[in-house]
Formats: sequence, C-alpha cells, structure tokens
Amino acid sequence: MQNAIRIIGIDPGLRRTGWGVIETIGNSLRFVASGTVTSDGDMDLASRLCQLHDGLADVVHSYQPDEAAVEQTFVNKDAVATLKLGQARGIAMLVPARAGLHVSEYAPNAVKKAVIGVGHGEKQQIHMMLKILMPKAEFKGNDAADALAIAICHAHNRGGDRMRRLLAAG
Amino acid sequence: MQNAIRIIGIDPGLRRTGWGVIETIGNSLRFVASGTVTSDGDMDLASRLCQLHDGLADVVHSYQPDEAAVEQTFVNKDAVATLKLGQARGIAMLVPARAGLHVSEYAPNAVKKAVIGVGHGEKQQIHMMLKILMPKAEFKGNDAADALAIAICHAHNRGGDRMRRLLAAG
Repeated sequence: MQNAIRIIGIDPGLRRTGWGVIETIGNSLRFVASGTVTSDGDMDLASRLCQLHDGLADVVHSYQPDEAAVEQTFVNKDAVATLKLGQARGIAMLVPARAGLHVSEYAPNAVKKAVIGVGHGEKQQIHMMLKILMPKAEFKGNDAADALAIAICHAHNRGGDRMRRLLAAG
Repeated sequence: MQNAIRIIGIDPGLRRTGWGVIETIGNSLRFVASGTVTSDGDMDLASRLCQLHDGLADVVHSYQPDEAAVEQTFVNKDAVATLKLGQARGIAMLVPARAGLHVSEYAPNAVKKAVIGVGHGEKQQIHMMLKILMPKAEFKGNDAADALAIAICHAHNRGGDRMRRLLAAG
C-alpha cells in the first residue's frame, strides 16, 4: 500500500495569496482544503507581509503538508507590480521552507498543462477540470483555484522533481 | 536625559543583505555593529530565503533594535532581477516586523542626501562620510556601508515619520 503525500500549492499575491491542500496516493488525488490569505491594503508593507506570513503559517500548521509548490511569478512589464509580487512570493516560499518542506516552483503554463492538458486556457476551464479531477474540491475565487491547480501540477511532476534532487545531491 | 534609540538599517539583496545597527541620542549618532548576511547561490530559492531569514533574525535577536529602516529597492528594467530583489526585500521587511519593530522605507536618493548632503554620489563618498559621522564605524563592503547609511537616514527622519504615523492613527 502506498502512502498518501500531502501537498500544499500556493498562488502568491500581496493582496490575496491563494492556498490549496491535496493528497496524492499513487495516481489518485484527494481534495483536503483551500482558501485565501489576505493582507490589509491600508496597512504599511511590513505589516502586510506579516499578515501573509502568519496566515500561511497557520495553514501549514493546521494541515501539515509534506511538500510545497509555488507558481513561478509571471514577470510582466510593470516593475512596481513585479516588485510587490516578489515580496509576497518571498513570504510564500519562506513559510513552507521554514517548516522543513521542500518547495518546488512551476511556470504558469506547466500548471495549466497539468490541469487542462494544454499550456493555455481560461480560468473557467481550470475550475471545471478541478471539479472533474477532485469532485469534492471546494474553492472560493481564482486564487484558491489556482493554488489547487499548482498542487495538482506538483502531484504530477514530483517523481521527476525528487529524482533530480536526489541526483543533484549526489 | 534623552533615551538612546537603537536603529537597524537593512540593504536587501538575494545574494548579500547588508545590515547596520546604530544608536541615536538627540542629535548624536553611535555605531553599534554592521555585517552582511549571505545566501548560497547553489541552493534552491526557498532555502536561500530561509538563510537570509535566519541570519537577519539572529542579528535582530542579538542587537535588539527599537526601529528598522529598509531601502526602497531601485526598480530597474530587468524584471527577473527586480523579482529576485523583491523576494529578498520581503524577507528583509518581515524579520523586523515580526519582532514588533516599525519598518520605515527610504528611497536611495533620500539615503544619500542624509549621509552626503546631496541625492547622488559615489560609494566612496558614503564610506568617507560614515567615518566622519561615526568615527568608530566598522564595515566590510558596500552592503554593510549602505545599511549603515539607511540607519542614519532613519535617525534623521524618524521624528517626522513617527509624527505622521501618530496623526494617521488618529
């Protein structure tokens, strides 16, 4: 009998960071929980980063995932937006890493490909496929749905990712 | 008699994050310590962010500053570099904020103006002025020197900054 591996996917953002926890046993997927951690736009940046940190740390503590996956941020032409996203992303990677989890990164098109079969598609297609892949999945909003998609992407790729790490470690 | 206020300045970077601790009593400045926290470029991003976090957390724990100041990152045209810096900067702001410190942000030209009197200048001028302002200052490399300059900038501006916060808090 194979052990269940619990995965947390995180879709970072300064205002809203989505998270989704799933379990993978062999080729099957099971929904565990999902949600969104928010920061208060009226507060100063350092306090907002604390809010994201504390919210994500609570989630990791509550659901005790074994591995983490974070989306590789889309780098657009707006440098101010890229910097903001970078700051939130730093927190999104730090929290699981401090809890001792390995954190994998996936490009947005790899995430879409893992869920809808192609590297491009509408949000609506992702929502529909999440419900097909995990009928009990519950998510409110795009951030939580994207986070679940990232977790599924890692479930599909973790074998190769682990192998690369073992080889790199010699 | 006025109380000494201990300030930590942080110059964030993924590879090297400089830090400098000073004390301000009235109009006088006193050097306390400075250094650089580094991350290992061969490790994955999440582990590197952990290294920066743990290194900065040690410094905050050792020197117990009252207030923190971080440079507003220069946003250049290279989005990948901006994202990397953003991630390091997220950690640089999180660590003092989690320790309960208020974290102020200063633009690079404000930092230069506070130390050398004008908003532009060479690194060498900053090093020289640090030695004039704080004869006992010790620093290895530009990152630690820049961090001390950020701390001095906050020492000069903290009155107005605190007043604005008190007014904003009603």
